[in-house]
Amino acid sequence: MILPSGQRATFSKTITEADIQAFADLTGDRNPLHLDAEFARRARFGRPVAPGLLVAGMISAALGTRLPGAGAIYLSQSLRFLKPVYPGDTVTATVEVTAWQEHKGVVTLRTTCANQAGDLIIDGEAVLLVAR
Amino acid sequence: MILPSGQRATFSKTITEADIQAFADLTGDRNPLHLDAEFARRARFGRPVAPGLLVAGMISAALGTRLPGAGAIYLSQSLRFLKPVYPGDTVTATVEVTAWQEHKGVVTLRTTCANQAGDLIIDGEAVLLVAR
Repeated sequence: MILPSGQRATFSKTITEADIQAFADLTGDRNPLHLDAEFARRARFGRPVAPGLLVAGMISAALGTRLPGAGAIYLSQSLRFLKPVYPGDTVTATVEVTAWQEHKGVVTLRTTCANQAGDLIIDGEAVLLVAR
Repeated sequence: MILPSGQRATFSKTITEADIQAFADLTGDRNPLHLDAEFARRARFGRPVAPGLLVAGMISAALGTRLPGAGAIYLSQSLRFLKPVYPGDTVTATVEVTAWQEHKGVVTLRTTCANQAGDLIIDGEAVLLVAR
């Protein structure tokens, strides 16, 4: 198996208010910044924003279903949150191989998310153990 | 406002098969390692494991609801995944202040998750902008 540097895959999804509510129900993260329009109106972004780890879920989907794909096991993930995501935004995660250690079966990828305007909203790196 | 180093908060939740299915539906991460018992039986852990970012959601809940709490905005999160989480495991996230830059309103916390046996399953660091 070879995972050449530069190989990439993407995964896109539009994040809805219902998704933000589902994330809150699933994780218990009820930060009103995500859920309470009146609270959010008085906060930094002026309206509710999607939880960072919900947006990062698009990276998890790209990694777990496309590259390296089924059976891949997370070893680490770093995430820098650069811009907010609002309900209705379409997020595209891109994962791109930057290193492949064949003897260990360990792949390193740059992991980014962009919105529909092409703005970079998350930048980071993932390391995974690849199923063989 | 002062956020002294060593201040900490926790958030606990038992992760169920239904939670893993909900995470797959929400994010699109349909890695069979999490969802397909037969696939998982032949893989590294011998049974389905929870997605890493679902487990990390307990950290997001601790940060967004307890410390620093409502209105906190994620700047970054790093995650090292040390051990698997199985359906039925109870995850406790602990977040502990390691640095507080009052002039910027930026707090840094060590973020860990443990299972019901006390095994460390995630270790990492979060940086957040605190609502004022």
